Amino acid sequence: MIELEKLYDRIIQRTNINLRELDFDVATQIQDLIPLSQLTKFYAFYGISPNHPIDFQFRHSSLSGSYFLGKCKVTNSLLYKSDIRGDELKKKGDSFQFKDFSIPIKRDESMSIENSMLIKTLVHNFSHDPETPEEFYIKDTISLHFANIHGAPSRGCFLEPFATVDLTTMNECVIGAYSYIQAGEINRLNIKPGTVWVRVPDNFNFLYQFPQDQLDEYVCFNKCETPKGILMDFVNDRKEDFQQVFDMVSKKQPISVPDNASLDPYAVTKAENHINEKVLVSQRAFLQNVWMGMGANAQENSIIINSRLERYNVTAHGAKIIEADLGEKVFVGFNSFLRGKPNEKSNSRLTVGKGSIVMPHTIIDIEDQLVIPEDTLVWGLIRNEKDLKQNSVSIQEFEKVETGLSMGNMVFEGNGANFVAAFRDRINHILEANGAFFDGKKNKGHAQKNQNMSFNTIQPYPKGDLEGLYPTIIIQP
Amino acid sequence: MIELEKLYDRIIQRTNINLRELDFDVATQIQDLIPLSQLTKFYAFYGISPNHPIDFQFRHSSLSGSYFLGKCKVTNSLLYKSDIRGDELKKKGDSFQFKDFSIPIKRDESMSIENSMLIKTLVHNFSHDPETPEEFYIKDTISLHFANIHGAPSRGCFLEPFATVDLTTMNECVIGAYSYIQAGEINRLNIKPGTVWVRVPDNFNFLYQFPQDQLDEYVCFNKCETPKGILMDFVNDRKEDFQQVFDMVSKKQPISVPDNASLDPYAVTKAENHINEKVLVSQRAFLQNVWMGMGANAQENSIIINSRLERYNVTAHGAKIIEADLGEKVFVGFNSFLRGKPNEKSNSRLTVGKGSIVMPHTIIDIEDQLVIPEDTLVWGLIRNEKDLKQNSVSIQEFEKVETGLSMGNMVFEGNGANFVAAFRDRINHILEANGAFFDGKKNKGHAQKNQNMSFNTIQPYPKGDLEGLYPTIIIQP
Repeated sequence: MIELEKLYDRIIQRTNINLRELDFDVATQIQDLIPLSQLTKFYAFYGISPNHPIDFQFRHSSLSGSYFLGKCKVTNSLLYKSDIRGDELKKKGDSFQFKDFSIPIKRDESMSIENSMLIKTLVHNFSHDPETPEEFYIKDTISLHFANIHGAPSRGCFLEPFATVDLTTMNECVIGAYSYIQAGEINRLNIKPGTVWVRVPDNFNFLYQFPQDQLDEYVCFNKCETPKGILMDFVNDRKEDFQQVFDMVSKKQPISVPDNASLDPYAVTKAENHINEKVLVSQRAFLQNVWMGMGANAQENSIIINSRLERYNVTAHGAKIIEADLGEKVFVGFNSFLRGKPNEKSNSRLTVGKGSIVMPHTIIDIEDQLVIPEDTLVWGLIRNEKDLKQNSVSIQEFEKVETGLSMGNMVFEGNGANFVAAFRDRINHILEANGAFFDGKKNKGHAQKNQNMSFNTIQPYPKGDLEGLYPTIIIQP
Repeated sequence: MIELEKLYDRIIQRTNINLRELDFDVATQIQDLIPLSQLTKFYAFYGISPNHPIDFQFRHSSLSGSYFLGKCKVTNSLLYKSDIRGDELKKKGDSFQFKDFSIPIKRDESMSIENSMLIKTLVHNFSHDPETPEEFYIKDTISLHFANIHGAPSRGCFLEPFATVDLTTMNECVIGAYSYIQAGEINRLNIKPGTVWVRVPDNFNFLYQFPQDQLDEYVCFNKCETPKGILMDFVNDRKEDFQQVFDMVSKKQPISVPDNASLDPYAVTKAENHINEKVLVSQRAFLQNVWMGMGANAQENSIIINSRLERYNVTAHGAKIIEADLGEKVFVGFNSFLRGKPNEKSNSRLTVGKGSIVMPHTIIDIEDQLVIPEDTLVWGLIRNEKDLKQNSVSIQEFEKVETGLSMGNMVFEGNGANFVAAFRDRINHILEANGAFFDGKKNKGHAQKNQNMSFNTIQPYPKGDLEGLYPTIIIQP
């Protein structure tokens, strides 16, 4: 395992060099946190389909548990249960719109993850950086459990558990646990845990800060310790169910789904589930007794239990929905945790009215029934009616905001209508990309393209100096 | 599947061009025999260990079900459930002995299988050709179900089902079903089914011919039809047991074995089996209620049921042993079929005395008890005492043969002692290579080296023009 240890040390060193201006030492944060001996026990896998041009190159890396789809290049990196999706890469001849610029794409976009360590991290590549439209890079970056790097090139960064960076180019930043950052470009920032920040420079700025003590109950990261809290426990409770899925080579569809829908063979389904047309259930999603309306999707690492989602619902990466009824076109953002209670004694489920937007990294965890009205914007930590009043606003009202709004721990500056329009656009893009609007011919999305996939599993050297590392693997069409 | 069909046609064409002097048309033999649609349903896999230098390169091939170990290169070939073992490749600096020549090996030996179609064929690479010591090639060759190509470079050949070519360089030959050829170098021969031929030019020549009608009961190949007969049925009856093993990604040792023994995770074990020290149970072997003595081995595709094998037994590739008791150091050659009957009514098991040599491709299929004495050489088809008399000889007697011997369908020319010595040498080499003589430090063999292996599974394109073909895959240390 000597080479694996060297790789580990080198990645930490590189990240530290990048973070020196912030006076931040990654080693003191993650010492002994990642048991390298574990890495030899997993296998990595990648999908091959007629719809995703491949160009995988893994050199002297450790890949355990990774999932690759589409072009990829990983050099001297350590990925541990990472998902990496290259299914929205720009193609030669495409045109990429950025503000008033229409940028022609000169060659197929590639991915590259060099000298990075991504622990149970999802990487999804709808990249947006107008400076490097042909390359989606992640370099000298370390991210911990269930972090998401979403269309977010990064260099020399450290992401704590359950952090999400979305459509943001980051240089030399530290992102605290359960923080969500969608802010264009950021440099040398140290963002504290539980920050939800959505910014379009010169347009609007949304900022919410979780109360630290209450956030700790849900997500808590202390130096060099495994992350704790309700979210971590909730994920760990389902480890065994996933183990069973990962143990089998030939995946058979456990339940029947319509021709234009797709249920990933690496998803878990338990009890009775109903999958309607154009639904996408992604890799590592978990469904237990769920009704999914037409065009709804359950993205990677989402967990949905005893719930009904009407059509065009979006459950973003890592979101959890339990004992809840969601109306049409409800959006539940990244890593949100929505937990109602079963109707055993009284009616204590959670209801989210149609058209509502649950901001990324929102926690709704209730003891008594809670009904969120139609077309509501919701954020932050909500455990009862009182919290809801402070952490939500009618979208119609919000669109009237012209200069700013402040409610509880949330501060908004800028134009509310623009903020809502940007969100609606994004939700439409997600539905479209996922195949919710497929008409039998046009608008194919992931739900249609991800069918007919074959999966290849790869394992590291089992013993010797190279234990835990993979041989150099090059796969080309 | 267009590209797969083109590949299939091209390989047939190439083989036909090679076989034109024999006026042999492969297409008329195998038309519709290989359902190409089946090929998309399997996965291929290869092993990675610290002990086997890898250099896999698969380009525009179809690999379904293959198993690769050690260096390999497969270009535009179609391998279907093939096993290919590169674990006895010569290394740079080795010296290869051929008669009086001591040939220095200038670079690591490589394997290459170009424009070939190998259907459920085992390829094992202890190559012996003094003309190409650094390359083990198989080119423009088609071989059918359960054929073995064993250290046998070949060019432009066609092997019918259950044929074995062993330590033979073949050019433009046709080898009939259940024929065993170990003959140095052969060119443009059309060998009829059921021929057992062992020759060392200028030394000895052993030739046995199975009676055609009786062979048909066991192995029967008619143009364009799936092979029939008891051997084929016997293998097919165990398909499901293997399916279960192949369905799991993480192979766990089903029974405990000594540290210096090895039970391949892709072997099947049923009922109670006892594995002693230094035993090797290879990939795709099948053991059911078997006692394996120290240093005994069960090679690829062997099937052993309700039997006891004393120490240093060799069960060669594809041999089957049922309801039998084998003394010390019994050798059972390739594809032999030894079937006693259970002791339910009377004692009707098969007993093989210690030191006996059961020639490759021997069929012993008895209704009543049969005891083969110690140190006996056995061949051909034996169903009772009378057959045994005609198809066996005491090794001591045989060693006295100076010019020739003829018994039943067997003709021997040359020196008997040389023949026996050559066989004994070979058996010792097999035991040594398999690790039977490991003393804790020296004489490591496959039983020790094959531990700590990790397995990677790869699948073909599932749809589209490339259906059934694999992307280009290059794997290097």
